[in-house]
Amino acid sequence: MRAIEQLKYRYTRCLDLKQWDGFADTLTADVTASYGAQLSFSGRDAVVEFMRSSLGPAIITVHHLHHPEITIDADEASGTWYLQDTALITEQRMLLRGAAFYDDTYVRTDAGWRIARTGYVRSYESIETLPESWKLTANRWAAA
Amino acid sequence: MRAIEQLKYRYTRCLDLKQWDGFADTLTADVTASYGAQLSFSGRDAVVEFMRSSLGPAIITVHHLHHPEITIDADEASGTWYLQDTALITEQRMLLRGAAFYDDTYVRTDAGWRIARTGYVRSYESIETLPESWKLTANRWAAA
Amino acid sequence: MRAIEQLKYRYTRCLDLKQWDGFADTLTADVTASYGAQLSFSGRDAVVEFMRSSLGPAIITVHHLHHPEITIDADEASGTWYLQDTALITEQRMLLRGAAFYDDTYVRTDAGWRIARTGYVRSYESIETLPESWKLTANRWAAA
Repeated sequence: MRAIEQLKYRYTRCLDLKQWDGFADTLTADVTASYGAQLSFSGRDAVVEFMRSSLGPAIITVHHLHHPEITIDADEASGTWYLQDTALITEQRMLLRGAAFYDDTYVRTDAGWRIARTGYVRSYESIETLPESWKLTANRWAAA
Repeated sequence: MRAIEQLKYRYTRCLDLKQWDGFADTLTADVTASYGAQLSFSGRDAVVEFMRSSLGPAIITVHHLHHPEITIDADEASGTWYLQDTALITEQRMLLRGAAFYDDTYVRTDAGWRIARTGYVRSYESIETLPESWKLTANRWAAA
Repeated sequence: MRAIEQLKYRYTRCLDLKQWDGFADTLTADVTASYGAQLSFSGRDAVVEFMRSSLGPAIITVHHLHHPEITIDADEASGTWYLQDTALITEQRMLLRGAAFYDDTYVRTDAGWRIARTGYVRSYESIETLPESWKLTANRWAAA
C-alpha cells in the first residue's frame, strides 16, 4: 500500500516539476487517463505528450493528493484519492483552482507498481483573473 | 491505524459528496460533534440532519484532512487532524476558507471503527465575495 | 516511517500554533534550515528565534505537508514532502500563498527521531492584498 502511495506521489511530483521521463515511468504503456469531462487519453505516449505540450514554464501547477483509499487484490489494485489542484497561468495572470475525486487502477509489473487507469470527476473547477495587487515573490521557473 | 484513517476519509468523502447515508454510517449513534464555537450537536441524527439541511447542491464543500496523529488504546482511539476547508456558496458568489485542528475519539464496534466524538478549534475562517472575473468551469452539482 | 511522519506533523502543528518549546523539541541542536533562497539558519536556537520573532499573533500561518517519500537507513533517514502554505498578515490584510518541495534529513536520537536538516525549494510564492469584502469569521489569536 505504501508502494502505491509512493507511485502516486512520484506521478504528481514529476508532473508539477515537469520531469516528463519520470512522469512517463509511473504509467503503463497502455494506460488510459480521463481528466474531467473533456480530456481523455489512451496510451502513455498520448498522456505524456499532452502534459508536456500543455504545461510549459509559464504554467505553475500544484497537485495535492489526499485521503488514499486503496484496495489490493494480488497484482492489481484500485484506489480513490481526493485531489486539490491549483494552476497559475502567469502570463495571463489567471488562477485555476479545483477539487476532484480520482478513481485509479494499478498493476504490479516487474519494475514495481504502475498506473494502469486514472481518471477523476471534478467537484468543481474555477478560473479567475488575479487581482492587481497579486505578485509572485518566488517562481521555480522564472529563469526559463 | 489505517482503518481509522479510512474511516475519517470516508466521513469526509461522503460529506463532500452529500451522501448522507454513508456519512451517517461513520458515526456512533450517540456521537457528539462540535464545529467551532457556535455549532454543537449530540447524536448521529442531529449531526446528519444539520449537514443535510445546510449543504444543498448550491454549496460546494471541499474538506481536506492532513497530519493524522492517532493513538489507539484497545477498542478506543483518539486522533488529531489538521483540516483545510473551502466552501463555495455559488448563488451568492461567496467563498469560505478555513483551517482547524480536529480532536476526535473513535470506538471499535462490531461493524468496525466509528467516530464517537469529533470537534475542532479553528485557526481561522474567512469569507469573501468572489471577484467578477471568477467563474465555475466545472461543477458536479450543476444539473441539480 | 510513521514516527518520522508524526515528527514532521508535530513540527508543523507547533509552528502554526506558535508553541515554540514543542517546535524546538522536533529539531536537533545543530539543525540547519533553509527556507527558499533567502532564509537560512544554523542551529536550533537560531531557527526557533527566527520563527518566534517573525510569527506573532497577527500572522496566522497554515502549513500543510503532503506526499511523504521517506527512506530510512538505520539511524538516519531522508524525506521529501510537498508543502502548501498560507499566511494571513491580518493587520496589513495581506495573503501569502505558496508551494514547495521539502528535502529533509532525520536522525534517531535517544529521545526519538529529530529533524537534522530541513529545507525547501519553492514552486512558487505569491502575495496579494485581500479584497475589501474579505473578513475573518474566526481567528484563534483574536484575543491576543
